[in-house]
Amino acid sequence: MTSLNAVATSEQNHRRYAILGTGAVGGYYGACLQRAGQDVHFLLHRDIDHVQANGLRIDSIKGNFTLPRVQAYRRTQDIPPVDVAVIALKTTQNLRLLPEILPPLVGPNTVILTLQNGLGIEGAIAAIAPEATILSGLCFICSNKVGPGHIHHLDYGSLLMGVYDSRDQPVGLSPELKAVAQDFIAAGLTVDLTEDLYLARWRKLVWNIPFNGLSVVLNATTADMMAHPNSRQLAADLMAEVLTAAKVCARAALPGSDRALDPAIMAAMLENTTKMKPYRTSMKIDFDEGRPLEVEAIFGNPLRAAQQAGTPVPRIETLYHQLKALDPGSTLR
Amino acid sequence: MTSLNAVATSEQNHRRYAILGTGAVGGYYGACLQRAGQDVHFLLHRDIDHVQANGLRIDSIKGNFTLPRVQAYRRTQDIPPVDVAVIALKTTQNLRLLPEILPPLVGPNTVILTLQNGLGIEGAIAAIAPEATILSGLCFICSNKVGPGHIHHLDYGSLLMGVYDSRDQPVGLSPELKAVAQDFIAAGLTVDLTEDLYLARWRKLVWNIPFNGLSVVLNATTADMMAHPNSRQLAADLMAEVLTAAKVCARAALPGSDRALDPAIMAAMLENTTKMKPYRTSMKIDFDEGRPLEVEAIFGNPLRAAQQAGTPVPRIETLYHQLKALDPGSTLR
Repeated sequence: MTSLNAVATSEQNHRRYAILGTGAVGGYYGACLQRAGQDVHFLLHRDIDHVQANGLRIDSIKGNFTLPRVQAYRRTQDIPPVDVAVIALKTTQNLRLLPEILPPLVGPNTVILTLQNGLGIEGAIAAIAPEATILSGLCFICSNKVGPGHIHHLDYGSLLMGVYDSRDQPVGLSPELKAVAQDFIAAGLTVDLTEDLYLARWRKLVWNIPFNGLSVVLNATTADMMAHPNSRQLAADLMAEVLTAAKVCARAALPGSDRALDPAIMAAMLENTTKMKPYRTSMKIDFDEGRPLEVEAIFGNPLRAAQQAGTPVPRIETLYHQLKALDPGSTLR
Repeated sequence: MTSLNAVATSEQNHRRYAILGTGAVGGYYGACLQRAGQDVHFLLHRDIDHVQANGLRIDSIKGNFTLPRVQAYRRTQDIPPVDVAVIALKTTQNLRLLPEILPPLVGPNTVILTLQNGLGIEGAIAAIAPEATILSGLCFICSNKVGPGHIHHLDYGSLLMGVYDSRDQPVGLSPELKAVAQDFIAAGLTVDLTEDLYLARWRKLVWNIPFNGLSVVLNATTADMMAHPNSRQLAADLMAEVLTAAKVCARAALPGSDRALDPAIMAAMLENTTKMKPYRTSMKIDFDEGRPLEVEAIFGNPLRAAQQAGTPVPRIETLYHQLKALDPGSTLR
């Protein structure tokens, strides 16, 4: 992980952005970019009329602000060609919605930046837009949409960005990556860069798999889960499985390497979670609202990757089956 | 397993029974024994006044009946010496309540019959009554208490009885076992006998671990669990872990033996569960009523037995931690 302060150029560009999915994540980051002077075009669905009339409202621990006028669209066909297409949809939309709405935006020089959680995200996007450069931004943010065009940014907000490599190997920091990261920094956001996006995605799963999963199954906040010794132990056991899977999968992608996550992150994440304000995870919010859960991105893809690499992850598998059975988006319920 | 019809003697004795725990199980079997002419003494707690005044009411698929007068007690000290003390309490009572209420009933010739679920049950009872002969009856019954002194017997009702051996080894069918079984048969019940109680307890766990556990975590009936492919798969995976643990533990107790459950019972139990009327498990009923869950008897003891025998059972362990965190009886909630 490289701090961008060391690599950022001083050049200030104005780029045109499209935000696909103007919710808790896309709405917040898109609004920050527009406030900083970028030309931002927002795709909306349910909230389109409200946002066209009233713009966006951001209640943030870093300071509230409103954008009375935003460029809001119902269809990507109506958005002019953009430099950067930011995908901030739930991954549950990638299979059916993305193949329809992404291609109209992608020209020969378009960069795609996905802000989505989980594993195997970029491969699905590359299948839709095989010519595009794909970047990923892992978002460390507590943010909820609380009403139409109204985002509540509760805590954190930094991004870890990297370049997608189709073989899941480490790659360098590209000019496109640095330029996009610089735009986010100029918008007041904290950005770190990684040369090993694949391992960074596994690192994020070390937290997301136990806490997103157990929050739904145990009907619990982060504070509830850390307060009970059995859920805390299970969270730690799940983290250990993710760490093992990460090592096996990362080394399978680059044989002979010593790619692995530092086991010390487990204790550090548990400690940080204890210190967090009690938090309802994004998967728990989706569950409570009756929305489809991101089970395949966060659980199914890592589970299958581990199994293909020959590593059983029975605790993750147990949680996967439970979440599939509980998923309001399941066609079987 | 031996059918008692082959071994039962024709002698008809009248024995004195105490029923500790006059609920869904103890109330039903105790009422059947009294109806058949046995001298039955019922220990009650909350329902004592109602039952002293009105007796017991059994609504059963095998025919409804009422016992207008029963011998009902608040304290075991007031029950006369009995031949058979039947323990039909929840196992969650074994640690604190049983050491107080069992000893007054146990004389030099008292036989204890526990009708409780799980593993390691008899050892805890033997610690309280070291001189007593301990028998176990595994109950295959769908029965609920629906009001004070009012039992609803929905389905099934057979028992599998065996003699407890402190080394968890197979033993013969004792005269006490045959006599008690004969009383139950004379009361209209179906009884089978086993020479390997330890393996029979594991066999019952093959069903109880997946379906009792997942019913709570997934908020599901047996029909819900069988209808969704992921919960069905997880139930099968849990069954396979129980089978492995049973084999390892049974052979550790009797080295050199080939003790094991037939893997074919997995498919048979899944098939039978599909055919059952949709059923809310006893653990789910306890959970819905805010009562302590039998987590240690059904999950904790088998988990620790498997771990001590060197066999990891990560799916059972995951479910154990989840149920401990969800247990309304947890002192930490």
